[in-house]
Amino acid sequence: METLSIGQYDLIYNAFSFGFATLAAATLFFWLGIGQVKQQYKTAMVVTGLVTFIAAYHYFRIGQSWSEAYVLAEGAYNATDKGFNSAYRYVDWLLTVPLLLVELILVMSLTRSETVSRATRLGLLALIMVALGYPGEVAESGSVRWIFGLLSMVPFLWIVYELYVGLGKAIESQPENARGLVKAARNVTVVSWFFYPIVYFAGAIGIEGATATVIVEVGYTIADLVAKAGFGVLIFLIAMRKSEEPDGQKRQTVPA
Amino acid sequence: METLSIGQYDLIYNAFSFGFATLAAATLFFWLGIGQVKQQYKTAMVVTGLVTFIAAYHYFRIGQSWSEAYVLAEGAYNATDKGFNSAYRYVDWLLTVPLLLVELILVMSLTRSETVSRATRLGLLALIMVALGYPGEVAESGSVRWIFGLLSMVPFLWIVYELYVGLGKAIESQPENARGLVKAARNVTVVSWFFYPIVYFAGAIGIEGATATVIVEVGYTIADLVAKAGFGVLIFLIAMRKSEEPDGQKRQTVPA
Repeated sequence: METLSIGQYDLIYNAFSFGFATLAAATLFFWLGIGQVKQQYKTAMVVTGLVTFIAAYHYFRIGQSWSEAYVLAEGAYNATDKGFNSAYRYVDWLLTVPLLLVELILVMSLTRSETVSRATRLGLLALIMVALGYPGEVAESGSVRWIFGLLSMVPFLWIVYELYVGLGKAIESQPENARGLVKAARNVTVVSWFFYPIVYFAGAIGIEGATATVIVEVGYTIADLVAKAGFGVLIFLIAMRKSEEPDGQKRQTVPA
Repeated sequence: METLSIGQYDLIYNAFSFGFATLAAATLFFWLGIGQVKQQYKTAMVVTGLVTFIAAYHYFRIGQSWSEAYVLAEGAYNATDKGFNSAYRYVDWLLTVPLLLVELILVMSLTRSETVSRATRLGLLALIMVALGYPGEVAESGSVRWIFGLLSMVPFLWIVYELYVGLGKAIESQPENARGLVKAARNVTVVSWFFYPIVYFAGAIGIEGATATVIVEVGYTIADLVAKAGFGVLIFLIAMRKSEEPDGQKRQTVPA
C-alpha cells in the first residue's frame, strides 16, 4: 500500500487546485474574448475555451478523487482501498486532445474542405493515440506499459509529421503578422506533448512508489497547463492579430 | 497544538466569507462592464475580472480548508491534524499578482512591443517575488522566514522602481482625464502590496500563536481585497474615462 509524506500529498493536491484555477480562468478569458475577434475566428475561440473547460471539470474531479484516495494517519497519507481515479485524465484527453488540433486548424482559416479533412485526420490520430496509452497507464507490469506506450507513439509521430510537413505550406501562407505565432503554436503543441510520454515512461523505467506518483501527477499537470491554457493564449493572439487585417475594406480609417 | 477562542476562529472564518463575497461580486461587476468600454480596453477588463475570479475561487477553498482545520471542543477551537492549507494563498498569488500588473499595462494602451516587454518583465518579477515568499511562509523557524522574506523584497523593490521610474514617462503621456487615476492605480498597487510584507513579518518578530494567526489571516484578506477588487475598480474607471476620448486624437504626447 502506497504511503505519501504530508508534503508530497499536499504538493499534488495543490498542483490539482492550481490546475483547476488556471484552466477555469483560461476558459473565461477565451470565451470573453470571442467578441474581440472577427467572425471567422469565433469558432476557434469557442473550441479553445471548450478544451480548458473540459479540463477544468476534470481537474476538479481529480482533486476530489485525490482527497478520497488517501487517509491521514500518524503523520503520513496512506492509500485507501478506493484508490485514485486516473481514468479522469484519459477521459479528458479523449475529448481535449483532438479538439486542441481542431483549434489550430480553425484559427488558420483554411478552405472548408481542407479544414474538414485535416481536422478529421488529426482528430482521429489523436483519439487513437490517447486510447492506446490507457491500457499501459493502468497496467501492473512495466512491459505492458512499454508496449502500449510505444504503440501510442505511432499516431503521435504521425501527428508531428502532419503538423510539420502536411501543414507546412498552409502555415507559410498565413498572414505575415500572425505567421510566427502560428509556428509557435505548432511548436508548443509538439514540445508540450513530448512531455506526456516522458512522464508516462517515468513509470516504466523503475521509478516507483511515492516519487513516481509525484512525478506523474505534477508532470501531467504542468503539461496540461502548457498544452491547453498556454497554447490557447497563442490561439487567442493569432485570432486577434488576424482580426486586425483589413478585410476587403471593412475597416475604414477614421481621420484624425 | 494551536488553540483559538471561538471569537478568533469566527472572525477569521467571516473574513474569508467576506473575501469570497467581495471578490465574486467584483468579478461580475468587471465582466458586466466589458461592453461599456472601447475595444482597446476590453482585454484589460477581462483580465481585471480574471484576477478577482481566481481569488474568489481561492477564498472559497480557503474557507473550506479553515472549517476542516479546527475542531470545537470545550469552548475553544483546536487545530486538527489536517491543518489549514496556506498554500492556497500562494497558488492564488502566483496567478493573480502577475496578472494585476498586466491589467495596469493593458489599460495604459501602450504600443504593442512596449506592452509585451513591460508586461513580461513585471509579470516575471511578480512570479519570482511570490515564489520566494512561500518557503518562508511555511517555515517553522523565524530566521528562515526572515531570509526568504528579505529575498522576496528584492523583486518587490524592483517592481516599485519599474512602476515609478520605468513607467513614469508613459504615465505622464496618458490622456489628461485619466492620468490622475492611472497614478492612483499605481500608488494603490505599491501601498497595498506593502501590506503583505508587514503581515508576513508579523510572524517573524515574535508575535505567535492565536494572535499571529488572526493578524496574518485577516491582514492578508484585507490586503487582497484592496489590491484586487479596489485596484480593479480604478482600472475600470480608467477604462471608462479613456473610452470617452474621441478616437481621432488617439494620444497626444504631453511634454514631460
